[in-house]
Amino acid sequence: MPNSSVTLPAAPPDADACEVSQANEAAVAAVRPQLLPAPVVVTLAETFKLLGDPTRVRILDALSKAELCVCDLASLLDVSESATSHQLRLLRNLRLVRSRRAGRMVYYALDDEHITRLFAQGLEHVEESAPRQDGGGRS
Amino acid sequence: MPNSSVTLPAAPPDADACEVSQANEAAVAAVRPQLLPAPVVVTLAETFKLLGDPTRVRILDALSKAELCVCDLASLLDVSESATSHQLRLLRNLRLVRSRRAGRMVYYALDDEHITRLFAQGLEHVEESAPRQDGGGRS
Repeated sequence: MPNSSVTLPAAPPDADACEVSQANEAAVAAVRPQLLPAPVVVTLAETFKLLGDPTRVRILDALSKAELCVCDLASLLDVSESATSHQLRLLRNLRLVRSRRAGRMVYYALDDEHITRLFAQGLEHVEESAPRQDGGGRS
Repeated sequence: MPNSSVTLPAAPPDADACEVSQANEAAVAAVRPQLLPAPVVVTLAETFKLLGDPTRVRILDALSKAELCVCDLASLLDVSESATSHQLRLLRNLRLVRSRRAGRMVYYALDDEHITRLFAQGLEHVEESAPRQDGGGRS
């Protein structure tokens, strides 16, 4: 109930939002200048979106274990080499994997330590979140 | 075709793949048992996919700076509170953000350190990759 003589409406339909709809201008003003520029936001979203595909996750998972060629990856994933190549090309365009030629072979690896850690962090999150699904969530 | 006196074909149309199409069975056998189970792959892909949206990236960016309520986020992102709530609900379902009620306010934060680091790693990757786009790629 309010602290004056105003009667507030009943609990809002969205119980996940504040009961009073008023931004904290000081908080907003403090955060606003720190926000990422729009082009960075877009590229970051594109990067995560590219990662958001099971086949590409499986490729990155395999490459997090070893440097592999297209044939190895196609065999591991049980998909065609051309489909594997296509996915690798997409991943390489966003610098998520890199390739190196060695004689007649082309080997793929995760592009850098950021990708290794990015993948590892996502995995840790998923693995730690899983038990919570049947153990009653936090509120 | 046999591996004796055979003339190999010319360079393949896909120069990113090996010239000989033959998986290294030892490498494949070593990696296969280490691969993630399918349900984990799917959840990980869903998590990355959810991150792959500019509005949600902006929300996570803002929450990486401060704990904020729906009204604050709506103001920062210049979108409606209901749209903001909707995105927050999606993010919370996959444990990317968490909320806490404090009196009449509901504050949101990144769910845990994994999410903070996941976001930071993605950002570092994007920011370090950017200069390479106009500086000639690695081969």
